[in-house]
Amino acid sequence: MALDGDDTLWHNETRFHLTQTALRDLLRRHVPDADVDRHLSDVEMRNLSLYGYGVKAFTLSMLETAIQVTDGRIPTADLEVILGWGKKMLGEPTELLDGVVEALQALNGRYELLLITKGDLFDQESKLARSGLGEMFSGVEILSEKNEDAYRSVLRRRHIDPKEFVMVGNSLRSDIVPVVATGARGIHIPYPLTWHHEQVADEKMPKQGWYRLESIAGLAALLDSIDRASPGVG
Amino acid sequence: MALDGDDTLWHNETRFHLTQTALRDLLRRHVPDADVDRHLSDVEMRNLSLYGYGVKAFTLSMLETAIQVTDGRIPTADLEVILGWGKKMLGEPTELLDGVVEALQALNGRYELLLITKGDLFDQESKLARSGLGEMFSGVEILSEKNEDAYRSVLRRRHIDPKEFVMVGNSLRSDIVPVVATGARGIHIPYPLTWHHEQVADEKMPKQGWYRLESIAGLAALLDSIDRASPGVG
Repeated sequence: MALDGDDTLWHNETRFHLTQTALRDLLRRHVPDADVDRHLSDVEMRNLSLYGYGVKAFTLSMLETAIQVTDGRIPTADLEVILGWGKKMLGEPTELLDGVVEALQALNGRYELLLITKGDLFDQESKLARSGLGEMFSGVEILSEKNEDAYRSVLRRRHIDPKEFVMVGNSLRSDIVPVVATGARGIHIPYPLTWHHEQVADEKMPKQGWYRLESIAGLAALLDSIDRASPGVG
Repeated sequence: MALDGDDTLWHNETRFHLTQTALRDLLRRHVPDADVDRHLSDVEMRNLSLYGYGVKAFTLSMLETAIQVTDGRIPTADLEVILGWGKKMLGEPTELLDGVVEALQALNGRYELLLITKGDLFDQESKLARSGLGEMFSGVEILSEKNEDAYRSVLRRRHIDPKEFVMVGNSLRSDIVPVVATGARGIHIPYPLTWHHEQVADEKMPKQGWYRLESIAGLAALLDSIDRASPGVG
Protein backbone atom coordinates (compact mmCIF):
# COMPACT_ATOMS: atom_id res chain seq x y z
CA MET A 1 0.00 0.00 0.00
CA ALA A 2 1.06 3.59 -0.50
CA LEU A 3 0.51 6.98 1.10
CA ASP A 4 0.67 10.48 -0.30
CA GLY A 5 2.91 13.00 1.52
CA ASP A 6 1.60 16.58 1.18
CA ASP A 7 -1.48 17.14 3.36
CA THR A 8 -1.72 13.41 4.07
CA LEU A 9 1.39 12.95 6.23
CA TRP A 10 2.53 16.56 6.63
CA HIS A 11 0.99 20.02 6.28
CA ASN A 12 1.52 21.62 2.89
CA GLU A 13 -1.44 23.54 1.47
CA THR A 14 -1.53 25.68 4.62
CA ARG A 15 1.88 27.16 3.83
CA PHE A 16 0.77 27.98 0.28
CA HIS A 17 -2.45 29.46 1.62
CA LEU A 18 -0.68 31.68 4.16
CA THR A 19 1.80 32.89 1.56
CA GLN A 20 -1.00 33.65 -0.87
CA THR A 21 -2.76 35.69 1.80
CA ALA A 22 0.43 37.67 2.32
CA LEU A 23 0.72 38.23 -1.44
CA ARG A 24 -2.86 39.51 -1.56
CA ASP A 25 -2.14 41.98 1.24
CA LEU A 26 1.10 43.09 -0.36
CA LEU A 27 -0.37 43.70 -3.82
CA ARG A 28 -3.51 45.43 -2.52
CA ARG A 29 -1.29 48.10 -1.04
CA HIS A 30 -0.46 49.00 -4.64
CA VAL A 31 -3.75 48.06 -6.36
CA PRO A 32 -6.52 48.08 -3.74
CA ASP A 33 -9.22 46.41 -5.84
CA ALA A 34 -7.03 43.78 -7.53
CA ASP A 35 -8.38 40.22 -7.73
CA VAL A 36 -5.01 38.74 -6.78
CA ASP A 37 -6.26 35.19 -6.19
CA ARG A 38 -7.84 34.89 -9.60
CA HIS A 39 -4.85 36.42 -11.36
CA LEU A 40 -2.40 34.15 -9.56
CA SER A 41 -4.54 31.12 -10.32
CA ASP A 42 -4.62 32.02 -14.04
CA VAL A 43 -0.86 32.51 -14.10
CA GLU A 44 -0.28 29.20 -12.30
CA MET A 45 -2.50 27.25 -14.70
CA ARG A 46 -0.83 28.88 -17.69
CA ASN A 47 2.61 27.98 -16.34
CA LEU A 48 1.76 24.43 -15.25
CA SER A 49 2.96 22.76 -18.45
CA LEU A 50 6.34 24.52 -18.18
CA TYR A 51 6.92 24.70 -14.43
CA GLY A 52 5.08 21.68 -13.01
CA TYR A 53 4.20 21.68 -9.29
CA GLY A 54 6.02 22.91 -6.22
CA VAL A 55 7.31 25.92 -4.34
CA LYS A 56 9.75 27.14 -7.00
CA ALA A 57 6.98 27.12 -9.62
CA PHE A 58 4.69 28.92 -7.15
CA THR A 59 7.33 31.56 -6.40
CA LEU A 60 7.93 32.27 -10.10
CA SER A 61 4.17 32.57 -10.66
CA MET A 62 3.82 34.92 -7.66
CA LEU A 63 6.53 37.19 -9.10
CA GLU A 64 4.86 37.21 -12.52
CA THR A 65 1.50 37.98 -10.91
CA ALA A 66 2.96 40.79 -8.79
CA ILE A 67 4.47 42.53 -11.81
CA GLN A 68 1.35 42.14 -13.95
CA VAL A 69 -1.24 43.10 -11.33
CA THR A 70 0.64 46.31 -10.49
CA ASP A 71 1.36 47.09 -14.14
CA GLY A 72 5.04 46.94 -13.28
CA ARG A 73 4.74 49.53 -10.50
CA ILE A 74 5.70 47.13 -7.71
CA PRO A 75 9.01 48.15 -6.08
CA THR A 76 11.82 45.63 -6.44
CA ALA A 77 12.07 45.55 -2.63
CA ASP A 78 8.62 43.91 -2.60
CA LEU A 79 9.74 41.38 -5.21
CA GLU A 80 12.65 40.51 -2.93
CA VAL A 81 10.13 39.93 -0.17
CA ILE A 82 8.30 37.45 -2.44
CA LEU A 83 11.58 35.68 -3.26
CA GLY A 84 12.12 35.43 0.48
CA TRP A 85 8.70 33.83 1.02
CA GLY A 86 9.64 31.07 -1.43
CA LYS A 87 12.88 30.39 0.45
CA LYS A 88 11.05 30.41 3.77
CA MET A 89 8.55 27.83 2.49
CA LEU A 90 11.38 25.60 1.22
CA GLY A 91 13.28 25.82 4.49
CA GLU A 92 10.39 25.35 6.92
CA PRO A 93 10.38 22.28 9.16
CA THR A 94 8.15 19.43 7.97
CA GLU A 95 5.12 19.56 10.27
CA LEU A 96 3.40 16.18 10.58
CA LEU A 97 -0.39 15.89 10.79
CA ASP A 98 -1.83 14.63 14.07
CA GLY A 99 -1.71 10.87 14.51
CA VAL A 100 0.57 10.15 11.55
CA VAL A 101 3.38 8.44 13.46
CA GLU A 102 0.99 6.22 15.41
CA ALA A 103 -0.98 5.33 12.27
CA LEU A 104 2.18 4.35 10.36
CA GLN A 105 3.48 2.34 13.31
CA ALA A 106 0.19 0.41 13.38
CA LEU A 107 0.70 -0.52 9.70
CA ASN A 108 4.40 -1.26 9.88
CA GLY A 109 5.25 -4.93 9.45
CA ARG A 110 1.72 -5.71 8.29
CA TYR A 111 1.96 -3.90 4.96
CA GLU A 112 4.80 -2.86 2.71
CA LEU A 113 4.58 0.94 2.77
CA LEU A 114 5.38 3.15 -0.20
CA LEU A 115 5.37 6.94 -0.25
CA ILE A 116 4.02 8.33 -3.53
CA THR A 117 4.10 12.11 -3.83
CA LYS A 118 4.21 14.60 -6.64
CA GLY A 119 5.93 17.91 -7.06
CA ASP A 120 9.44 19.17 -6.89
CA LEU A 121 11.94 16.31 -6.48
CA PHE A 122 14.42 18.27 -4.39
CA ASP A 123 11.81 19.80 -2.08
CA GLN A 124 9.95 16.50 -1.57
CA GLU A 125 13.13 14.58 -0.72
CA SER A 126 14.12 17.32 1.66
CA LYS A 127 10.69 17.29 3.35
CA LEU A 128 10.78 13.51 3.71
CA ALA A 129 14.27 13.66 5.24
CA ARG A 130 13.16 16.33 7.72
CA SER A 131 9.93 14.43 8.54
CA GLY A 132 11.82 11.61 10.25
CA LEU A 133 9.48 9.12 8.53
CA GLY A 134 11.99 7.89 5.93
CA GLU A 135 12.71 4.59 7.70
CA MET A 136 9.05 3.61 7.66
CA PHE A 137 8.83 3.37 3.89
CA SER A 138 10.27 0.57 1.82
CA GLY A 139 10.18 2.78 -1.26
CA VAL A 140 9.62 6.37 -2.35
CA GLU A 141 8.19 7.53 -5.68
CA ILE A 142 8.21 11.21 -6.52
CA LEU A 143 6.14 11.73 -9.66
CA SER A 144 5.84 14.83 -11.81
CA GLU A 145 2.11 14.11 -12.23
CA LYS A 146 -0.10 11.56 -10.48
CA ASN A 147 -2.23 10.26 -13.32
CA GLU A 148 -3.36 6.76 -14.29
CA ASP A 149 -0.31 6.13 -16.50
CA ALA A 150 2.06 7.16 -13.73
CA TYR A 151 0.41 4.81 -11.21
CA ARG A 152 0.34 1.94 -13.72
CA SER A 153 4.02 2.43 -14.37
CA VAL A 154 4.89 2.39 -10.62
CA LEU A 155 2.81 -0.77 -10.06
CA ARG A 156 4.35 -2.53 -13.10
CA ARG A 157 7.89 -1.57 -12.12
CA ARG A 158 7.36 -2.81 -8.56
CA HIS A 159 5.48 -5.97 -9.63
CA ILE A 160 2.40 -4.99 -7.62
CA ASP A 161 -1.02 -6.33 -8.65
CA PRO A 162 -3.49 -3.39 -8.68
CA LYS A 163 -6.08 -5.65 -7.03
CA GLU A 164 -3.78 -5.85 -4.01
CA PHE A 165 -2.88 -2.17 -3.91
CA VAL A 166 -4.41 0.61 -1.81
CA MET A 167 -3.49 4.31 -2.10
CA VAL A 168 -4.14 6.73 0.77
CA GLY A 169 -4.25 10.47 0.20
CA ASN A 170 -6.07 13.77 0.55
CA SER A 171 -6.50 14.60 -3.15
CA LEU A 172 -9.41 13.07 -5.06
CA ARG A 173 -7.79 14.12 -8.33
CA SER A 174 -4.28 12.78 -7.63
CA ASP A 175 -4.70 9.99 -5.06
CA ILE A 176 -8.12 8.46 -5.70
CA VAL A 177 -9.52 8.84 -9.25
CA PRO A 178 -6.43 7.62 -11.19
CA VAL A 179 -5.79 4.82 -8.66
CA VAL A 180 -9.34 3.47 -8.88
CA ALA A 181 -9.02 3.61 -12.68
CA THR A 182 -6.11 1.13 -12.51
CA GLY A 183 -8.29 -1.37 -10.63
CA ALA A 184 -6.70 -0.59 -7.26
CA ARG A 185 -8.48 1.05 -4.30
CA GLY A 186 -8.24 4.48 -2.79
CA ILE A 187 -8.71 5.80 0.72
CA HIS A 188 -9.50 9.51 0.81
CA ILE A 189 -8.60 11.44 3.95
CA PRO A 190 -9.67 15.05 3.33
CA TYR A 191 -7.46 17.92 4.46
CA PRO A 192 -9.21 21.12 5.58
CA LEU A 193 -7.73 23.06 2.64
CA THR A 194 -7.65 21.84 -0.96
CA TRP A 195 -6.15 23.66 -3.92
CA HIS A 196 -8.92 24.09 -6.51
CA HIS A 197 -6.77 22.24 -9.08
CA GLU A 198 -7.00 19.08 -6.95
CA GLN A 199 -10.78 19.08 -6.56
CA VAL A 200 -13.17 16.73 -8.34
CA ALA A 201 -16.96 17.20 -8.56
CA ASP A 202 -18.98 14.52 -6.74
CA GLU A 203 -20.67 13.35 -9.94
CA LYS A 204 -17.29 12.72 -11.56
CA MET A 205 -16.10 10.40 -8.78
CA PRO A 206 -16.09 6.65 -9.36
CA LYS A 207 -19.07 4.90 -7.78
CA GLN A 208 -16.96 2.32 -5.98
CA GLY A 209 -13.38 1.29 -5.25
CA TRP A 210 -12.70 4.00 -2.71
CA TYR A 211 -13.40 4.89 0.90
CA ARG A 212 -13.36 8.05 2.95
CA LEU A 213 -11.80 8.45 6.38
CA GLU A 214 -12.03 11.47 8.63
CA SER A 215 -8.55 11.03 10.00
CA ILE A 216 -5.51 8.85 9.50
CA ALA A 217 -6.11 7.44 13.00
CA GLY A 218 -8.74 5.10 11.54
CA LEU A 219 -6.53 3.74 8.77
CA ALA A 220 -5.41 0.41 10.27
CA ALA A 221 -8.98 -0.49 11.24
CA LEU A 222 -10.32 0.35 7.78
CA LEU A 223 -7.60 -1.71 6.10
CA ASP A 224 -8.47 -4.65 8.37
CA SER A 225 -12.09 -4.51 7.32
CA ILE A 226 -11.18 -4.23 3.61
CA ASP A 227 -8.79 -7.13 4.02
CA ARG A 228 -11.47 -9.29 5.60
CA ALA A 229 -13.74 -8.58 2.61
CA SER A 230 -11.00 -9.23 0.01
CA PRO A 231 -7.96 -10.99 1.45
CA GLY A 232 -4.60 -9.88 0.14
CA VAL A 233 -5.44 -6.21 -0.28
CA GLY A 234 -2.83 -3.81 1.03
CA MET B 1 24.99 0.40 -18.13
CA ALA B 2 23.70 3.94 -17.77
CA LEU B 3 24.06 7.29 -19.49
CA ASP B 4 23.67 10.82 -18.22
CA GLY B 5 21.30 13.14 -20.14
CA ASP B 6 22.38 16.80 -19.92
CA ASP B 7 25.43 17.47 -22.12
CA THR B 8 25.91 13.74 -22.69
CA LEU B 9 22.84 13.01 -24.83
CA TRP B 10 21.49 16.53 -25.37
CA HIS B 11 22.79 20.08 -25.15
CA ASN B 12 22.16 21.78 -21.83
CA GLU B 13 24.98 23.95 -20.50
CA THR B 14 24.94 25.96 -23.73
CA ARG B 15 21.43 27.25 -22.97
CA PHE B 16 22.49 28.29 -19.46
CA HIS B 17 25.61 29.93 -20.87
CA LEU B 18 23.71 31.92 -23.50
CA THR B 19 21.16 33.08 -20.95
CA GLN B 20 23.90 34.09 -18.52
CA THR B 21 25.54 36.15 -21.29
CA ALA B 22 22.23 37.91 -21.89
CA LEU B 23 21.89 38.59 -18.14
CA ARG B 24 25.38 40.10 -18.07
CA ASP B 25 24.51 42.41 -20.97
CA LEU B 26 21.20 43.39 -19.40
CA LEU B 27 22.64 44.21 -15.97
CA ARG B 28 25.64 46.09 -17.33
CA ARG B 29 23.26 48.55 -18.91
CA HIS B 30 22.38 49.51 -15.33
CA VAL B 31 25.72 48.86 -13.59
CA PRO B 32 28.49 48.98 -16.23
CA ASP B 33 31.28 47.55 -14.07
CA ALA B 34 29.28 44.85 -12.27
CA ASP B 35 30.84 41.39 -11.94
CA VAL B 36 27.58 39.67 -12.83
CA ASP B 37 29.04 36.18 -13.29
CA ARG B 38 30.65 36.11 -9.87
CA HIS B 39 27.57 37.51 -8.16
CA LEU B 40 25.27 35.02 -9.88
CA SER B 41 27.58 32.17 -9.00
CA ASP B 42 27.61 33.21 -5.33
CA VAL B 43 23.82 33.46 -5.27
CA GLU B 44 23.45 30.05 -6.95
CA MET B 45 25.80 28.35 -4.49
CA ARG B 46 24.02 29.97 -1.56
CA ASN B 47 20.63 28.80 -2.88
CA LEU B 48 21.70 25.27 -3.82
CA SER B 49 20.61 23.65 -0.57
CA LEU B 50 17.13 25.19 -0.89
CA TYR B 51 16.53 25.19 -4.65
CA GLY B 52 18.54 22.24 -5.96
CA TYR B 53 19.45 22.16 -9.67
CA GLY B 54 17.56 23.15 -12.79
CA VAL B 55 16.09 26.00 -14.78
CA LYS B 56 13.57 27.17 -12.17
CA ALA B 57 16.33 27.42 -9.55
CA PHE B 58 18.52 29.27 -12.09
CA THR B 59 15.72 31.71 -12.93
CA LEU B 60 15.07 32.51 -9.26
CA SER B 61 18.80 33.06 -8.71
CA MET B 62 19.00 35.33 -11.79
CA LEU B 63 16.15 37.47 -10.45
CA GLU B 64 17.81 37.74 -7.03
CA THR B 65 21.12 38.65 -8.67
CA ALA B 66 19.48 41.28 -10.89
CA ILE B 67 17.85 43.03 -7.94
CA GLN B 68 20.99 42.90 -5.78
CA VAL B 69 23.52 43.93 -8.44
CA THR B 70 21.44 46.99 -9.40
CA ASP B 71 20.66 47.86 -5.76
CA GLY B 72 17.00 47.46 -6.61
CA ARG B 73 17.14 49.94 -9.50
CA ILE B 74 16.34 47.39 -12.19
CA PRO B 75 12.98 48.14 -13.86
CA THR B 76 10.34 45.46 -13.40
CA ALA B 77 10.10 45.23 -17.21
CA ASP B 78 13.65 43.81 -17.17
CA LEU B 79 12.68 41.31 -14.47
CA GLU B 80 9.83 40.18 -16.72
CA VAL B 81 12.41 39.66 -19.45
CA ILE B 82 14.39 37.38 -17.10
CA LEU B 83 11.23 35.43 -16.20
CA GLY B 84 10.70 35.01 -19.95
CA TRP B 85 14.22 33.61 -20.42
CA GLY B 86 13.44 30.89 -17.88
CA LYS B 87 10.27 29.93 -19.72
CA LYS B 88 12.07 29.96 -23.05
CA MET B 89 14.73 27.58 -21.68
CA LEU B 90 12.06 25.23 -20.32
CA GLY B 91 10.17 25.21 -23.61
CA GLU B 92 13.09 24.81 -26.00
CA PRO B 93 13.31 21.66 -28.12
CA THR B 94 15.71 19.00 -26.83
CA GLU B 95 18.72 19.23 -29.13
CA LEU B 96 20.64 15.94 -29.31
CA LEU B 97 24.43 15.88 -29.51
CA ASP B 98 25.97 14.59 -32.74
CA GLY B 99 26.08 10.81 -33.03
CA VAL B 100 23.84 10.05 -30.04
CA VAL B 101 21.13 8.13 -31.88
CA GLU B 102 23.67 5.97 -33.75
CA ALA B 103 25.67 5.32 -30.58
CA LEU B 104 22.59 4.22 -28.65
CA GLN B 105 21.43 2.03 -31.53
CA ALA B 106 24.82 0.31 -31.52
CA LEU B 107 24.36 -0.53 -27.80
CA ASN B 108 20.71 -1.49 -27.95
CA GLY B 109 20.07 -5.18 -27.40
CA ARG B 110 23.64 -5.71 -26.20
CA TYR B 111 23.28 -3.78 -22.93
CA GLU B 112 20.38 -2.84 -20.73
CA LEU B 113 20.36 0.95 -20.93
CA LEU B 114 19.42 3.23 -18.04
CA LEU B 115 19.20 7.00 -18.14
CA ILE B 116 20.46 8.60 -14.91
CA THR B 117 20.14 12.39 -14.77
CA LYS B 118 19.87 14.96 -12.04
CA GLY B 119 17.96 18.18 -11.78
CA ASP B 120 14.38 19.24 -11.99
CA LEU B 121 12.05 16.21 -12.27
CA PHE B 122 9.46 17.93 -14.43
CA ASP B 123 11.99 19.52 -16.81
CA GLN B 124 14.04 16.33 -17.19
CA GLU B 125 10.98 14.18 -17.97
CA SER B 126 9.84 16.77 -20.45
CA LYS B 127 13.27 16.88 -22.13
CA LEU B 128 13.41 13.08 -22.36
CA ALA B 129 9.92 12.96 -23.89
CA ARG B 130 10.89 15.59 -26.47
CA SER B 131 14.22 13.87 -27.20
CA GLY B 132 12.53 10.88 -28.83
CA LEU B 133 14.99 8.60 -26.99
CA GLY B 134 12.55 7.32 -24.37
CA GLU B 135 12.06 3.91 -26.01
CA MET B 136 15.76 3.17 -25.93
CA PHE B 137 15.97 3.08 -22.13
CA SER B 138 14.70 0.27 -19.96
CA GLY B 139 14.64 2.61 -16.96
CA VAL B 140 14.99 6.26 -16.01
CA GLU B 141 16.33 7.64 -12.73
CA ILE B 142 16.09 11.35 -12.04
CA LEU B 143 18.11 12.12 -8.92
CA SER B 144 18.22 15.31 -6.90
CA GLU B 145 21.98 14.83 -6.44
CA LYS B 146 24.36 12.33 -8.08
CA ASN B 147 26.56 11.28 -5.19
CA GLU B 148 27.89 7.91 -4.10
CA ASP B 149 24.87 7.16 -1.88
CA ALA B 150 22.46 7.95 -4.68
CA TYR B 151 24.26 5.61 -7.11
CA ARG B 152 24.49 2.84 -4.48
CA SER B 153 20.78 3.14 -3.87
CA VAL B 154 19.94 2.90 -7.59
CA LEU B 155 22.20 -0.15 -8.04
CA ARG B 156 20.77 -1.87 -4.95
CA ARG B 157 17.17 -1.18 -5.95
CA ARG B 158 17.79 -2.52 -9.45
CA HIS B 159 19.86 -5.51 -8.28
CA ILE B 160 22.88 -4.42 -10.33
CA ASP B 161 26.38 -5.53 -9.26
CA PRO B 162 28.66 -2.44 -9.34
CA LYS B 163 31.39 -4.60 -10.90
CA GLU B 164 29.12 -5.04 -13.92
CA PHE B 165 28.00 -1.42 -14.14
CA VAL B 166 29.35 1.38 -16.34
CA MET B 167 28.21 5.00 -16.18
CA VAL B 168 28.72 7.35 -19.14
CA GLY B 169 28.60 11.11 -18.73
CA ASN B 170 30.20 14.51 -19.18
CA SER B 171 30.57 15.47 -15.53
CA LEU B 172 33.56 14.21 -13.55
CA ARG B 173 31.87 15.28 -10.33
CA SER B 174 28.46 13.70 -10.99
CA ASP B 175 29.05 10.86 -13.45
CA ILE B 176 32.55 9.56 -12.74
CA VAL B 177 33.92 10.17 -9.22
CA PRO B 178 30.91 8.82 -7.23
CA VAL B 179 30.45 5.91 -9.65
CA VAL B 180 34.08 4.78 -9.38
CA ALA B 181 33.73 5.04 -5.59
CA THR B 182 30.99 2.37 -5.67
CA GLY B 183 33.32 -0.05 -7.46
CA ALA B 184 31.70 0.51 -10.86
CA ARG B 185 33.39 2.14 -13.86
CA GLY B 186 32.95 5.48 -15.51
CA ILE B 187 33.35 6.71 -19.06
CA HIS B 188 33.90 10.43 -19.29
CA ILE B 189 32.89 12.20 -22.51
CA PRO B 190 33.73 15.89 -22.00
CA TYR B 191 31.35 18.58 -23.26
CA PRO B 192 32.90 21.82 -24.51
CA LEU B 193 31.31 23.80 -21.65
CA THR B 194 31.29 22.70 -18.01
CA TRP B 195 29.66 24.54 -15.11
CA HIS B 196 32.40 25.25 -12.54
CA HIS B 197 30.36 23.36 -9.92
CA GLU B 198 30.80 20.12 -11.92
CA GLN B 199 34.56 20.36 -12.30
CA VAL B 200 37.11 18.22 -10.44
CA ALA B 201 40.83 18.93 -10.24
CA ASP B 202 43.01 16.32 -11.96
CA GLU B 203 44.77 15.38 -8.73
CA LYS B 204 41.42 14.60 -7.08
CA MET B 205 40.38 12.11 -9.76
CA PRO B 206 40.61 8.38 -9.04
CA LYS B 207 43.71 6.76 -10.55
CA GLN B 208 41.76 3.99 -12.25
CA GLY B 209 38.25 2.71 -12.94
CA TRP B 210 37.43 5.28 -15.57
CA TYR B 211 38.09 6.08 -19.21
CA ARG B 212 37.85 9.15 -21.37
CA LEU B 213 36.28 9.32 -24.81
CA GLU B 214 36.32 12.27 -27.17
CA SER B 215 32.87 11.57 -28.54
CA ILE B 216 29.98 9.21 -27.94
CA ALA B 217 30.67 7.73 -31.39
CA GLY B 218 33.44 5.60 -29.86
CA LEU B 219 31.30 4.21 -27.03
CA ALA B 220 30.39 0.76 -28.41
CA ALA B 221 34.02 0.05 -29.35
CA LEU B 222 35.29 1.11 -25.91
CA LEU B 223 32.69 -1.07 -24.17
CA ASP B 224 33.75 -4.02 -26.33
CA SER B 225 37.36 -3.61 -25.29
CA ILE B 226 36.44 -3.25 -21.59
CA ASP B 227 34.22 -6.31 -21.90
CA ARG B 228 37.06 -8.35 -23.40
CA ALA B 229 39.26 -7.38 -20.44
CA SER B 230 36.58 -8.09 -17.79
CA PRO B 231 33.66 -10.12 -19.19
CA GLY B 232 30.21 -9.17 -17.89
CA VAL B 233 30.81 -5.45 -17.61
CA GLY B 234 28.06 -3.28 -19.03
